[in-house]
This record gives sequence, C-alpha cells and structure tokens, in this order.
Amino acid sequence: AASEVNKTAHSFDKARFEALLNRRFFYAPAFEIYGGIGVAGLYDYGPPGSSLQANIIAEWRKHFIIEEHMLELDTTIMTPASVFETSGHVARFADWMVKDTKTGDVLRADHLVGGVLEARLAGDKEARGLAAAPPAPDDKKKKKKGAKAAAVKLDDEVVKEYESILAQLDNYSGLELGELCRTYALRNPDTDNEVGEPQQFNLMFASSIGPTGQHPGENQFLKLPTNLSYLRPETAQGHFLNFSRLLEFNNGRIPFASAQIGRSFRNEISPRAGLLRVREFTMAEIEHYVDPEDKSHERFDEVRDIVLTLLQKSVQESGNNGTIRMSVGDAVAKGIIANETLGYFIARIYQFLLKIGINPARLRFRQHMKNEMAHYAADCWDAEIQNSTGWTECVGCADRAAYDLSVHSARTGHPLVVRQALKEPIVTEKEVPEWNKKALGKTFKGDAGVVQKLVEALEEPELLKLKGELLQGATVIKSEDGKEFQLTPELLTIERKVFKQSIREYTPNVIEPSFGLGRILYTLLEHSFWAREQDVERGVLSLPSVVAPTKVLIVPLSAREEFAPLVQEVSSKLRRAGVFSRVDDSNTSIGKRYARNDELGTPFGITVDFASVQNRTMTLRERDTTDQRIGTIDEVIATVVELVNGSIDWNAACARLPAYDGVQAVE
Amino acid sequence: AASEVNKTAHSFDKARFEALLNRRFFYAPAFEIYGGIGVAGLYDYGPPGSSLQANIIAEWRKHFIIEEHMLELDTTIMTPASVFETSGHVARFADWMVKDTKTGDVLRADHLVGGVLEARLAGDKEARGLAAAPPAPDDKKKKKKGAKAAAVKLDDEVVKEYESILAQLDNYSGLELGELCRTYALRNPDTDNEVGEPQQFNLMFASSIGPTGQHPGENQFLKLPTNLSYLRPETAQGHFLNFSRLLEFNNGRIPFASAQIGRSFRNEISPRAGLLRVREFTMAEIEHYVDPEDKSHERFDEVRDIVLTLLQKSVQESGNNGTIRMSVGDAVAKGIIANETLGYFIARIYQFLLKIGINPARLRFRQHMKNEMAHYAADCWDAEIQNSTGWTECVGCADRAAYDLSVHSARTGHPLVVRQALKEPIVTEKEVPEWNKKALGKTFKGDAGVVQKLVEALEEPELLKLKGELLQGATVIKSEDGKEFQLTPELLTIERKVFKQSIREYTPNVIEPSFGLGRILYTLLEHSFWAREQDVERGVLSLPSVVAPTKVLIVPLSAREEFAPLVQEVSSKLRRAGVFSRVDDSNTSIGKRYARNDELGTPFGITVDFASVQNRTMTLRERDTTDQRIGTIDEVIATVVELVNGSIDWNAACARLPAYDGVQAVE
Repeated sequence: AASEVNKTAHSFDKARFEALLNRRFFYAPAFEIYGGIGVAGLYDYGPPGSSLQANIIAEWRKHFIIEEHMLELDTTIMTPASVFETSGHVARFADWMVKDTKTGDVLRADHLVGGVLEARLAGDKEARGLAAAPPAPDDKKKKKKGAKAAAVKLDDEVVKEYESILAQLDNYSGLELGELCRTYALRNPDTDNEVGEPQQFNLMFASSIGPTGQHPGENQFLKLPTNLSYLRPETAQGHFLNFSRLLEFNNGRIPFASAQIGRSFRNEISPRAGLLRVREFTMAEIEHYVDPEDKSHERFDEVRDIVLTLLQKSVQESGNNGTIRMSVGDAVAKGIIANETLGYFIARIYQFLLKIGINPARLRFRQHMKNEMAHYAADCWDAEIQNSTGWTECVGCADRAAYDLSVHSARTGHPLVVRQALKEPIVTEKEVPEWNKKALGKTFKGDAGVVQKLVEALEEPELLKLKGELLQGATVIKSEDGKEFQLTPELLTIERKVFKQSIREYTPNVIEPSFGLGRILYTLLEHSFWAREQDVERGVLSLPSVVAPTKVLIVPLSAREEFAPLVQEVSSKLRRAGVFSRVDDSNTSIGKRYARNDELGTPFGITVDFASVQNRTMTLRERDTTDQRIGTIDEVIATVVELVNGSIDWNAACARLPAYDGVQAVE
Repeated sequence: AASEVNKTAHSFDKARFEALLNRRFFYAPAFEIYGGIGVAGLYDYGPPGSSLQANIIAEWRKHFIIEEHMLELDTTIMTPASVFETSGHVARFADWMVKDTKTGDVLRADHLVGGVLEARLAGDKEARGLAAAPPAPDDKKKKKKGAKAAAVKLDDEVVKEYESILAQLDNYSGLELGELCRTYALRNPDTDNEVGEPQQFNLMFASSIGPTGQHPGENQFLKLPTNLSYLRPETAQGHFLNFSRLLEFNNGRIPFASAQIGRSFRNEISPRAGLLRVREFTMAEIEHYVDPEDKSHERFDEVRDIVLTLLQKSVQESGNNGTIRMSVGDAVAKGIIANETLGYFIARIYQFLLKIGINPARLRFRQHMKNEMAHYAADCWDAEIQNSTGWTECVGCADRAAYDLSVHSARTGHPLVVRQALKEPIVTEKEVPEWNKKALGKTFKGDAGVVQKLVEALEEPELLKLKGELLQGATVIKSEDGKEFQLTPELLTIERKVFKQSIREYTPNVIEPSFGLGRILYTLLEHSFWAREQDVERGVLSLPSVVAPTKVLIVPLSAREEFAPLVQEVSSKLRRAGVFSRVDDSNTSIGKRYARNDELGTPFGITVDFASVQNRTMTLRERDTTDQRIGTIDEVIATVVELVNGSIDWNAACARLPAYDGVQAVE
C-alpha cells in the first residue's frame, strides 16, 4: 500500500513558500529588470504559472461551459466611455482615497482605518501581556508595513468598538470613513501625518481611440467625448450588450447562460504585493439569464444536499462573524440564499473549487452587506478562501437583477427583453374609439390630433359614458385649456373589442458567478504547499493532477544517447494518451531533479535507467509519498495514464505494481 | 462509398457569406446597440466564433508548445512607457497619416496612394474597353468606397509607373508618400480635397497607472512620466524582459522557445470593416532563442522537403510579384531563406495552417522589403493568405536578431545573455603589468590612477618594450597632455601569464513566428464557405473537425420526452470520449436544423427517432455530402469518435455503416 505522509509537520512558512514560487518562476513582478518602475500590481506568469492557469481554465470550461451548455463569448477589453456611463461605472466604480496632508501620498481610506485599528488592537494585546496573536483568520485587511503601534493598553470598551468597526469595514461610506479618521485620530502610519477628507477615485483605466480629435462626438448616445474609452473592469458588459444576439442563438429560449474568460483591468489605489490585488487580471464570468418570476433551477436537486459554510449579512451587520453550516437546500428553503438559481451556482462554485484542490475547511460563502454591495447587485455571496493574509474573496456570485439589461435598453432604445409565447393567451375586452379619419381632419383641421388624444386618454368608465352620449347624438369634449370640440357619431363610434395577448415580454434577471483566477491560483498554491517532515527545506506543491502544470516527469538516468529512443517512446505514448509530460535530462542527480519537480507540483515521475534498456522496465514515483514502484514500460504507462485521469488512486497503483527496492536495477 | 460533392458550383458570394457569419453570430461589431459610436475596428465573437478561436488556439498549443516543448508565458498587456521607449516603439511604431486640408479627416497615406492609383488603373481599363477587372489576387490594398475614378485612358508609360508603385507600396517612407501625392495629384477620394504632408501617428494606445500625479518619476530608468503606460502592440516584449528567468528555467540551455497567446492593441488610423484590420486582437507569438553563430535546427530534416510558394524581396523591389515554388531545403541551401531555423518555422507555420483548413493553393510566403521591415527585424517572411480582399498577412516570421535583448540589456544594465561552458577552454598567454600599489600611491599621489591607465592601455608589443626597459632599470611614460612619469621595477613589473576562458558569453538571436488569430480565423471561414449546387441559398462552412465549434449535433425527431434518455445517453457517451456535441430539440423540421448546422460548420449529425427507441439504431449524417448512414447506437458513436479524431474518413465510415434509405425508420 501507499506510504503515510505527514504534511503538517511544519507550519506554513510564507517566506519559504514565496521563495519557491519565485525560484520556479510561477510568477514574478512584471518589468522586474526595469526595477519595477512604480507599476505595482502587475505580474507575469512563467511557464508553471501559465500552465497551472491554463489547466484551471480548461477545467472551468468543462465544469461550467460544456457541462451546462453555456454560450461562450469573447468580447473586447477596450470599451467606449458611454457604455460604462450607462452601466454606472463612470459615476460609481470607485474606491475612497485619502491624501497625506503633508506628503500628498495616497492611501485607500478603508485600508488606513483597518490597518491602524488592527495595529492598536495588537498593541493592546502586547500591553496586556498576551502574546501578539498571529493574524487572525478573520483579519481581512492586510496590515500595512508601517502600521505597528506601540504597546498601549486600551479600555475594554474601545477594544469592542474597534472590533465592531473592523467587522463592518466593507460597509462604510466615504463620509463615515472620514468621520472614523477624525473620531479615532487615525493618521498615515508611514509618516504619522494627518490625512484629508476621503475622495472618490475611479478604478477604470482610461484611453482614447483613434487619432486625437478625429471623432467629433456627433453620435446620439454620447455625452462624453467620442474617443474616450475605458479598459473594462469586468467582462460582464460585453455579455449584456450582446444579449439579443445570444437569445436568438439560443432559439429565443430562457434560461440560458453566457460565459467568458478574459482580461480585465482595475486601477487599484494601493495594489498588494502578490496576486491578491492586482491591476490586470484574468476573470471567468458567467451571466445566467432567468425569468424574474421563476428563479427555480431544473438541476437544483443535484446539489440540494451539499453542505456549505455560510456567513450571513445580518450577522456581520451586528458586528460579528460567526458562520453556520447548512445544506444549500435548507439555505434556500429558509430564505438565507434568495433563490434556487443563486443556490445552484453557489454549490457549483463549491464543487469546482474542491475539484481543483482548494481545502474545503478553508472555504466559506459570505453575503455582502448593504453598503458593500456593487451598485448593480440585488444580493451577493462571495466565495472566500482563507490564506495567510486572511479570508480572500475569490468568486463573487451576485444577483444583478434586471439592472444592466434595463439601463442599456433605456439608453439605446434597443429592447433587451425576452418575448415568451404564452401557452394560454390572455383574453381581455376593451372599449375602443373607432375614428372616421377623413371626417375628423375635415372638421377639426390642425386640432384633429388634439381631439384624438383627448378621447384616447379617457379611462374605461368615461369611454362608456361617451359611448352612451354618442349613441344619442352629438356631445362635447373639453381640452385642458378649456377649448370645446363637438363630437358626433359621424366622427367616431366607441366599440367593444376583444384582445388576445399571446406574448409575454420581460427583462430577464441575471445571476452572475464571477471568478478571479489569479486569486484562486495563488490561494490554491498556498493550500498545496508543505515541507517534508525530515527536511523543512524540501518544499512540495501537492497540486492535483488535473491542474498540475506537468503530469509526468520522465527522468533518464543520464543524458547518454542509449536512453534517447526509450525516452522518445515513453513521451510519445503518453502524448497519444493525452498526458502532458516533460523530460529532464539535465546534468544533476535524479534526487535533485525530483526535488525540483516536487516544487513544480509534478505528481508522477518515471525513471529510465539501464534496466529499462535491458528488461524494458521502469520505475514510477509518486510525489507526495515519494514511493517508487516498478513495472514493464507498458504497465507503467497504462497505470500513470489512469492515475492522471483520476480513474485510480495511488493505493490502487501500488496494488498493481510491486515496490521498487533498488534490487531490480542493473548496473 | 461517400457521395461526390461539387463545392465550386457557385462562385464566392461575399454578401451571402457575411450574412451567414452575422446571422449565426460568429462575430459582430462591438457595441452594436450603441450604434457603433465611432469605434470601428472592435469586434465581439459570439458562441461559434469563440469556439472556433478556442479550437484554433488549442491546436496551436499542441502543434507548437507541446510538440516542441516551448515555455509558455502570460505577461501583462499594460506596460510602462519606458519599456516601449527602449524597444523603439515610442519613436517608430507608427503609420503615416495625411489630413484632408479642408475637412481635417485623417487618412492612412499608403492607403490613399494605393486606393487612388488602383481606381485610376481601373478607369483606364474601362476607357480601353476592357471589362473592369475583378480585384486581382495581388490587389493588396482594399479599395476605399469613394475611390472610383472616371473612365480615363492613361498613357502606357503611366500605367507602368502606377503598377510599379503599387508593387512597392509597403516600401515607401513618409517623405516619399508625400512626394507621390504631389507628383500624381492624389486627393482625398471622398471629398476630392488636397491632403497635407504625411505625419507619423503612433499606433499604441496610451493610459496612465495609479492615481494621477502619485508617481513623481524618480526611477532611474525613466525619461517619460512614471505613470504613462501603453497597451502592448505585440506580446514579444513580455518574453524578452523575462529572458533571464526563462533561460534559468530551461537549465541554462539554448536553443529554446517561449510562447504566449494573448490580446494586443493597435490604434489603427483606419480600421477595415471586418476582422482583417482591427484595434484589439488575439495573437500567438513564439520567440525562439538561438546561438547567432549556429542557426541550424535539429529537426530541419523533418521539414526539408516541404514545397512552398515564395515571393522574394528582390522580385518585389524590381516592381514585380512573381512567385516561385521551392522546397524549404533548397530555399535555405540557396540563401533565399536565411537559415535553417527560419526555414524550419516557416515550414511549421505552413503545416499548421493546412491542418486547420487553409487552402494551400491560396497561401504564399512573402519576404519583406527593406523599408517595410519593422525597426527590430533583420529579415522577415509573411505567411500571406488570399481572401476576397487580396493577399493578407496572417503570420509574420521575423529574425529579430539580437536587437531587443541588446537594447533592454543596455538600458537596464541587466545582462540578457547566455553563458555557455566551453567544452575546450580557450587558453591564451598575455603580458600583464603587476603593480606595487602602495609604492605607486606614494610616488604619484593623485596621478596614480592616470599612470595605471596609461600602462594598461598599451598593446602587447609596447608592453614587451616596456618590460625590456624595466628589466634594465627605470623608464619614462608620457600622458596625452605631455606629462612625464618615471617608472621603476619597484613600482611595477611586466609578467607573462596564462589565461583560461571556459565560458562563452553572447546575446542570443531571436526568430519570431507571430500569428494574428483573427485574420487566420476570418480567412479560414472564407476558404470553408460554399453553397449547395442545387440551392445557392444553402451555405455550408466545411470547417475541419479539429476546429469546428461543435463536432456532433444530436437531433431528436421532436422534443417529446421519450427521446430524452437516449439523447442523454448519446451526449454523455460522446462527452466521455472527449467529443463536444450539442443537442438541438428546437421546434423546427430536422432539415432546417441540419441546414442551420451546415452554416455553423458542424461536421456530423446524429438523428434520434422512434427506431432509436425501438431498435437502438441511429442515423449519422455527414455535412458536406449530406450522406446518411445507419447503425446501432454504439456503432455510430464509435464511428463518429474516430471521424472526429481524424483516424478514419467519411469513406471509411461508409464502409462500416450501411446507407440509410428511410426504410429502417419506424413510424
């Protein structure tokens, strides 16, 4: 059987972890050789990071797009300002910043408040003789470097106030943040200077299309200059603008979803070090269009029993952060999650995250508080994953209601609606004026239109009254300014007519699961990292096969030519079976080559040695246990293919292949 | 056997073709419901376009990245200005534009020249009584709408001049374009106004990072404002800046290649309608790093015999456009293609394009002329594919030499070089001055450095002379400004020393195949389009299975519930075999559903009817022939899986499954 492994012998060491990611080029700050040049928040992915990301995306595509027959889109990043003016982003997609009154340095207001209060609480703990606690799991806001406060004991009441503020930090408006700064004398921790009033800073990058001044802005929809454009901060608007085409592609049926994977941009005020708050990032977004009167989901039964950890809005708004464990079915039944479709997607997000290797014990769904919610959202749950910086929003799942489709429709006059054929047409009867247009024109000339409008504005009872009068002969109608018009049966009659409404027209609601792939990737790497019990320096990334950058490492004993045909054979057999392998014939020991690949998260290794040439056997090594087994070339390939596809586990592989004890080797 | 199909019964009808792409939402102008708002050159891909693009990318990844073990990268789009200042893009990545002197309209200078001269030539043909020729295959520049000229006969000599200018159009500088406008009285064809002198317009989109004014620009590398940034116009710089990390990842070995697929942006002066000249596009770029002294390629033998159509630089520069057919091996041997590595990639590009369905008869490789070449390139060949607008550059294959790595290295001081351990160290002997530093300082004080430099600047013969003099006692050395210094054996001796150089350090050259995926996708769609012989309205896209958006359409006879379990079974069996299918149970006839899928390029259709329920048989339809065959559910699935994988063709499938004649149906 497989060996036992102790992955928790050493506690998580962030410095060692980051050194590994950097050494193996998972990612690195962009423009590193230019010394960074003031462009924090931009990262390049190297070969293992790119492959890991590509594999996460491939799995996402399978799990969502293919499994649920979503309609994939690929829309532009560059977007005319008018679109974001309509969507509300020009006015409201902003963070609050404060300026240091002396240096002019810019800080995010909520980060300032959070950082300083946390530092004071830590100082209080120190003063009370309690060890400065390690960053608590709920420590959402990362501490700023300079935010260390002196060990000053605080009143018990003040501690409670601070804790309550921190629990609601995402809920404050700019005014309130400014008031907090004044009330608690919060200063820039880096300089100890006062800060000014919070100001809004729009997070969209602006650019300009075409040779400057070429577009005179004559378009009817434009208030902003024609050539002003923004880089999209989300892919969603690209979906909404194409709604009519998508609906048509789906044969007019609803519900359905569109999906898009692509880059978005946010001009963050203070990007964090690392992938958690960056200025350019890859998103995967789904817009699921649903009848507002029926948000049930036909596959809800498949996820009903999945139990999730939930942190409700009401709990946070009362200044706490206690979670509950509850099945999706119960949460929807109790109205904690608003409807089946929202619940279905929350559960599918949960399944996806587990599939790629996220630790379920460090995953919760947190509901947005009122002020925290994006301007377009009616309800929102974030999949938050715990990492060394605290709980991090990695997936948002928002009910955008009919907001976006309605505003674009109103702005452009293009109806973004569903027309549903009613099974039973709705039949109504109504009194309707029937005009003799010719006589009307002749009688009233320029006032004909006025007369018509006056009659058509009448409610049913008045129309009935008029009908009666006309049946008896002529009558008079008065306009608002007191002008009188004589109506006769020659000019009009009022008739009862039957109307059949066979189409229902409505603006669908949108449920939007939105994935930040960089945050997921980073957190997955943290969850996968551990160090060998006997040697803390030997880091391992236990990435699941499905996302591991390379599935199999082929290690010839040396770069000698006699191994080449075998290496070629193994490599091409694996490729034909759809398994991505790499050969490492570099000039170091096999042990060192395996250690390097443990760091790269490569789950399996195949050694080609003299026995392979002589007996056609190979050894197979598993990353986590470092177990080695032996078999014929074809046995080993068949086994590793099944391991990578997930149809067997390492225990099953051990039952098939005998342990390798070194005796089988040929010198 | 399979039926015969005549795909050329109708000539290519662009209007019908474009209507199809629009109707089936392959792609559409972005922000269409906003009326376009002056943002030409931006397109959204709908579901079939997105899938087609994703499949082309997946095949590209297999053909290049996996097959050749390239190192994949994913770098940022947003790039600080300094990087493009170094790369030369700030100064030189520009087109020449001219302004209409009255309206201020901006035109691309080369388009103006090309358009007007072509219109005049067409007018000449008309005047000579020759039918206005259809756009010639070499008609590289698309005619502007307004460019129609009157039927005026030209002198034979003028015709020759015009033709020669058109053949070299890409070769003119801004000055020359201005001169052509004056010499031939070329005016804005839309207004008939004169145009001004050509001016450069930089094609990069600019933006700004961070809250305005936050970055005071103190970084050493910066001349431009710190927060000025550009959206990359190519992915290449992201590769080059990471060269050292990539080399290390590759264990210091060369040659190797990095590869990246991603968005790039060019602020085109006059984007064309359609995907051929857009402002935002997806590229796939390879940077292959090679020893400048050895540009052989170890797999060149695999492509040596591939025969290509080549259009050489020298031919174009003499005002002609005759091509030759020649094997890659011969072209490299004759120096037409500069080296094996360039030849290897040209051949691999050719193989890739054929694999995804490009017609080889409409594919040529054109060498860039001198002035046409990008500022960084030493040699360049474009894969040009013919479509209804003429020959279109779809892939560039440039030898960028050491340009980029050298300039970034010089700017940043970070060496972007390869250090190669020499197998045989190079041993040299040299005369070297050995100083008594203490005595030197005491004797010459502030001039000690000057003296040292004077001696160390001496060539070997002079050093030998000095050695002799010192052996005999004191001697004198003169500085450039005539100052004399007395040297003695106490201050220095000259000694013969042995030097071993075991490392060779060099800047690699870069061969860059660069793919414009939108242009390839569009041209592939054109090459795939035809109409049924018996009905010109019935358009078909004969996309190869490997790139077709959907591989198999499952068509239940009706949406009746009894078909649901079978549809489910077929769909999940196909999914398990890795074949992407869609179900169409919409409320129209099977014939209409197939016609829709012929337009979508779906190669195979499976019909589920009452016979399927009763006898577990299904029919299989092939898109191009419309042949239908019948078999058991499992036979049909096995056959269609092999068809999609390309392991059998339709003829082989027909040998396995009997023809369906309708008799097997159950009513």
